[in-house]
Amino acid sequence: MRLPDVQADCPDIRINLTRVGVTDVKKLVEIVRERERPIILIATFDIFVDLPFDRKGANMSRNFEVIDEVLEESIAAPIYLTEELCEVIARRLLERHEYASRAEVKISSEYIIKHKTPKTKTQCHEVVNIFVGATANKSEGETRKTIGVEAAGMTTCPCVQQIMHEKAEEELSKLNVSKTATKKFLKNIPMITHNQRGRGSIFIEVGDSHEVSIERLIDIIKSSMSSQIYELLKRPDEIFVVETAHKNPRFVEDCVRIMAQKVVQEFTDIPDDSIVSIKQINEESIHQHNAFAERVATLGELRSEMSV
Amino acid sequence: MRLPDVQADCPDIRINLTRVGVTDVKKLVEIVRERERPIILIATFDIFVDLPFDRKGANMSRNFEVIDEVLEESIAAPIYLTEELCEVIARRLLERHEYASRAEVKISSEYIIKHKTPKTKTQCHEVVNIFVGATANKSEGETRKTIGVEAAGMTTCPCVQQIMHEKAEEELSKLNVSKTATKKFLKNIPMITHNQRGRGSIFIEVGDSHEVSIERLIDIIKSSMSSQIYELLKRPDEIFVVETAHKNPRFVEDCVRIMAQKVVQEFTDIPDDSIVSIKQINEESIHQHNAFAERVATLGELRSEMSV
Amino acid sequence: MRLPDVQADCPDIRINLTRVGVTDVKKLVEIVRERERPIILIATFDIFVDLPFDRKGANMSRNFEVIDEVLEESIAAPIYLTEELCEVIARRLLERHEYASRAEVKISSEYIIKHKTPKTKTQCHEVVNIFVGATANKSEGETRKTIGVEAAGMTTCPCVQQIMHEKAEEELSKLNVSKTATKKFLKNIPMITHNQRGRGSIFIEVGDSHEVSIERLIDIIKSSMSSQIYELLKRPDEIFVVETAHKNPRFVEDCVRIMAQKVVQEFTDIPDDSIVSIKQINEESIHQHNAFAERVATLGELRSEMSV
Amino acid sequence: MRLPDVQADCPDIRINLTRVGVTDVKKLVEIVRERERPIILIATFDIFVDLPFDRKGANMSRNFEVIDEVLEESIAAPIYLTEELCEVIARRLLERHEYASRAEVKISSEYIIKHKTPKTKTQCHEVVNIFVGATANKSEGETRKTIGVEAAGMTTCPCVQQIMHEKAEEELSKLNVSKTATKKFLKNIPMITHNQRGRGSIFIEVGDSHEVSIERLIDIIKSSMSSQIYELLKRPDEIFVVETAHKNPRFVEDCVRIMAQKVVQEFTDIPDDSIVSIKQINEESIHQHNAFAERVATLGELRSEMSV
Repeated sequence: MRLPDVQADCPDIRINLTRVGVTDVKKLVEIVRERERPIILIATFDIFVDLPFDRKGANMSRNFEVIDEVLEESIAAPIYLTEELCEVIARRLLERHEYASRAEVKISSEYIIKHKTPKTKTQCHEVVNIFVGATANKSEGETRKTIGVEAAGMTTCPCVQQIMHEKAEEELSKLNVSKTATKKFLKNIPMITHNQRGRGSIFIEVGDSHEVSIERLIDIIKSSMSSQIYELLKRPDEIFVVETAHKNPRFVEDCVRIMAQKVVQEFTDIPDDSIVSIKQINEESIHQHNAFAERVATLGELRSEMSV
Repeated sequence: MRLPDVQADCPDIRINLTRVGVTDVKKLVEIVRERERPIILIATFDIFVDLPFDRKGANMSRNFEVIDEVLEESIAAPIYLTEELCEVIARRLLERHEYASRAEVKISSEYIIKHKTPKTKTQCHEVVNIFVGATANKSEGETRKTIGVEAAGMTTCPCVQQIMHEKAEEELSKLNVSKTATKKFLKNIPMITHNQRGRGSIFIEVGDSHEVSIERLIDIIKSSMSSQIYELLKRPDEIFVVETAHKNPRFVEDCVRIMAQKVVQEFTDIPDDSIVSIKQINEESIHQHNAFAERVATLGELRSEMSV
Repeated sequence: MRLPDVQADCPDIRINLTRVGVTDVKKLVEIVRERERPIILIATFDIFVDLPFDRKGANMSRNFEVIDEVLEESIAAPIYLTEELCEVIARRLLERHEYASRAEVKISSEYIIKHKTPKTKTQCHEVVNIFVGATANKSEGETRKTIGVEAAGMTTCPCVQQIMHEKAEEELSKLNVSKTATKKFLKNIPMITHNQRGRGSIFIEVGDSHEVSIERLIDIIKSSMSSQIYELLKRPDEIFVVETAHKNPRFVEDCVRIMAQKVVQEFTDIPDDSIVSIKQINEESIHQHNAFAERVATLGELRSEMSV
Repeated sequence: MRLPDVQADCPDIRINLTRVGVTDVKKLVEIVRERERPIILIATFDIFVDLPFDRKGANMSRNFEVIDEVLEESIAAPIYLTEELCEVIARRLLERHEYASRAEVKISSEYIIKHKTPKTKTQCHEVVNIFVGATANKSEGETRKTIGVEAAGMTTCPCVQQIMHEKAEEELSKLNVSKTATKKFLKNIPMITHNQRGRGSIFIEVGDSHEVSIERLIDIIKSSMSSQIYELLKRPDEIFVVETAHKNPRFVEDCVRIMAQKVVQEFTDIPDDSIVSIKQINEESIHQHNAFAERVATLGELRSEMSV
């Protein structure tokens, strides 16, 4: 029996489609690294091509053939970056879906990193979420790629703390403690405020000739909150984390500004037209809702605002 | 004790922020309707203003004061549409956050509608997801608003069905059934294929002088899949639904095209620059992943493609 | 055409089934209240009956007929409690599924309550999750019911705070502040520690002749953490919440014990064989994981442990 | 400065706690296998010990030390099964939390398996969810363990299909096709019905001297629905899957019964007091809600019901 290719028919309603594909495809991905253990991800893929007005459907199974092929090949000829994996898949999709003019590949995954606690230097694990993608166009030479990371930390509220600070000053002045001694005391003994889990994220979209290190994004996000957090804290570590957090009170707005500053400082090699999206969400301990701040801009815009 | 306004300070890193606000705020919302019972929603609000470079933080509690005020007032002077509610809140936010130049309000909610089954006309309920929003700008007179709906239905695959159709033709010709009789048989007895839950969605962004009915969007989405689905199906209804679905096999791509056609046909009063986003996701019964199709365009673009 | 009743056939593999039914059924529920506005819920129902070995399937559509009937009737003859609603549905299901010997109904829903902030007495909303259920048995006269609530609050860690307390004592002694003055200072100015969102829950299972007030469960849960939380906090409220939380540092374990004590003190009219499940989860601000504590016991066991 | 051990204090409210610990701890786990590539999991751990009435808190950080230790050791002395990993951790927790009498460890994880499509024998991946756990008791020698799997497949409704079958018979009789030919035709050309994604699960609890293979559970679940599903289906595979599904119509109830039968047939070496929980959820394509069936029993009970 001949198998008809219904997808190749011309549809009755002749409009272009922006994206046709598959979502929620899970794959085990190994990213090779020189002199280090490979990165292992359980990655969720979303894969799309555009579809011209004269074609009823896309050949969905080709998407899987391409992913599997590229993952297979990457064992022999290593792919060193998840975003490079997306790029290769996106370009291969364009070859295979001959009717398409654009292909998009997105990967989201948990990524387990190792780090050491601040005082006892105990090794522990942490989960960050990574989001990488690539868009290939038939008409343009360049493939655009996106590198995104979301990581968790701790934030403390500056506003309540300042009020508590003033209250402590008053109490100490009643006890005849001098202004200088009070200042010193309050430097060592930071005052209470509400603190909570925060989640920072940075997404950068660049052309395929530029590289954005996921590890550097993780470092920027984690160092922009009031304190880093750890899975396993021995007593001296725990004290250090709580004190650090209270010595660096930060609003959601502050976290975004600090991340923006660090992105500008660290990614000097990335062009002005790169699009940067920076976000902070605080899971407020005093509320049921979250606090949110975001900056979306080209890197050029951020650079010019900061140079003032 | 004086309470310092830390938020009004100038931050060290002087960049603008695109969005500052609160997310995941839940409210009970009643939308009054003439001659009908009110619409009741447990709505989740996301509320943002932009923040200039010289202000450390936004006054988050004002967001709540504004929502509560507007919800309170709407009892005396009814608000008839959820998107109108967003508009009023967005404009009020701009008044209250005097430093902001743009305010955004988004509501997402489940919305329980009533309908009747196709054969036994039994009344039953259905849940659709609604997403409405409004953006007010100090510099521009017009507030833009978004009206979005996601609803569920059933889709059947045309491709497998056509193959089954050909197989049945072969079998019937072996039984010496005539071509005409075979054709008639296959019209009454549609052939098997895989079928599944589908979710269609339409989002339309328009200026504040235009109206987009949520009910019409729901109707368009539900009538663009292979069959509507129901909470409660008596036997004759169930047969009708299964037969209808198999007589209207549709790819994800087809569902998007049909929705696009109906949007063009029904919303003739909405201007060309309105942005339309139409999406279909099929929870494929033969796969673990989903099939996906999407068209994002201005209404003008859709109109011109369809007029060809 | 006759419609065959496939469900009534005898299956090939003749074993009993514990639960057959439908899950994730959403309904708008109004619970009438005397002299108050009705409680409005978007409730998710799970409904099950058992199935004997000689019956192939349950008649699923009857489940919907029963819910709709009972919801309809409850407008004329008000049902005052969500758990009573479950009871009535469970008993009706037993009548309608004549082959079943047990029927279970579960409702979960968000429930929006109103309360006032501690200092400025501003009214605000809060979402709690409620879980009620009922099990009716043909052989036993009594229907058992479960009333469960999960609510959020704020917890502060006693352990880090005590260390900070000792550190402050040391610093103050260096400044020649007397022990008595130090003690007084530290009573007014509590020391820092990590604090976070906590979620407490209490589930109580009783016979149908006993009542467990959802409102009292909410009060117990919310008053057992370090501080209550609010949607909208004006500055004086915010300070009050943060101070209160830091004056009542509590581990997850403490929250469970305090809830248990209050349940024993307040529900003196409920029999010893009632099953109580009390749980606290803290979304630790210094970790990515959660801290957890739970007690599952009969009320009799709790009473006897507390009387020692 | 001495670090006080607040956890070791005696609490004011002296009741026992059933479970104290941490939840949502994520770890990269490698399970070694002889002559095969290791199983790689991003596993989520929940870890609990009980707590006596005279101890304020558990030492939470010991939980992490134990997991890390055991995972580390397992590289040198391989652990071949995830449930064995839980057992070893549970026993080690009892040693380390000297005050506890019971320790529980639960792991849940996605697990990516490889299989081949039915006709073209194309290799593809599939995700199943695994849930393993162990409970160690100081007073009892035996550690109890649980092995659970949830996997997806496709189910087709027998009821609608039978009606369609009868309708086809009628139509064919009108065309003067003989009863024998009709019967043969309908055997080759199965009739339409609604079909959907189903999720089956089996959990078995046994003593530590017995083994339950996760792979066998996966096979039982997948072969108990109307058809297996695949990530990547070429045209001949797709037809095979759709035909197979329609030749094996099954209710949720049927799937549970078939799984129960296979568990009894395959796990003959497991004792009668093992607890078996078997569940099927169908994401009905004609409804928004799910259909559900479950059997919870000892293996002894299932054996005796089946031997009748």
